[in-house]
Amino acid sequence: MPPLPEPEASRDLDDVVTWNVVRVARFVGNRLAARLADNGLNPIQFGVLAFLEEQGELTTAEIARAVLLRPQSVAPLLDGLEERGLIRRVGVRAKGRRNPVQITEAGREVLDEAWVVALAANDLGDAGLTSDESTELNRLLLKVALATES
Amino acid sequence: MPPLPEPEASRDLDDVVTWNVVRVARFVGNRLAARLADNGLNPIQFGVLAFLEEQGELTTAEIARAVLLRPQSVAPLLDGLEERGLIRRVGVRAKGRRNPVQITEAGREVLDEAWVVALAANDLGDAGLTSDESTELNRLLLKVALATES
Repeated sequence: MPPLPEPEASRDLDDVVTWNVVRVARFVGNRLAARLADNGLNPIQFGVLAFLEEQGELTTAEIARAVLLRPQSVAPLLDGLEERGLIRRVGVRAKGRRNPVQITEAGREVLDEAWVVALAANDLGDAGLTSDESTELNRLLLKVALATES
Repeated sequence: MPPLPEPEASRDLDDVVTWNVVRVARFVGNRLAARLADNGLNPIQFGVLAFLEEQGELTTAEIARAVLLRPQSVAPLLDGLEERGLIRRVGVRAKGRRNPVQITEAGREVLDEAWVVALAANDLGDAGLTSDESTELNRLLLKVALATES
């Protein structure tokens, strides 16, 4: 395996890991969005439903943290999911803030199908990787994610 | 190496490659932004200067494509770099559109220092990876990027 390039020895953006992560994030994000479109979900909505299924009940602030968005961006997304009956608000409404949300049975059905699509997208065979390389890429990414998130 | 999880065998977002790429992109993007702040650049401005040094002269549309942004988002960024004397507009102004841009000597000096920072950020030792793992991660990411960009 070649060593990382020495600073100043290289002037090629292909050697900048940060840049390549962003390029690939853009590609896989658009790819998953295209594949989930038939399920009527975008990747963020999928993430929200998956977190709700895992956690049971979450506030807007907790959901925003989980999907790496600001609460102001998550609120309209939750309204949309609620209108479609995929999530419901629970408990007594507190003044000035929205109630926590839960996934509904209809939400679980949509999520079931979305999970199949999301896991199938792990296979990056259409993006130049072998199956072993896809697995290794996710192992390394997950190692970074778990080491750096508090 | 464990196989990729079977669809439906898993319900953990940690197993979704797309999700992990986005998490890591967020982390390394913020990390590079913090490190480049002393150089007065953000990661996108660094990318623009690096492309201009490599390509010599680019239009707003070409720069937008290179850094994965819309031309409307790139225009104010270029205005800022021009005001600081890091890039210059070249040629005769065409009606209704801005002239192509080049990097200036001052821009090259700022870029020289930014390159050292960007390449040093390839070492993900502070993010849970060994040096070999950092290198392998970039190899796999670059393989995907090159296989999927036209």
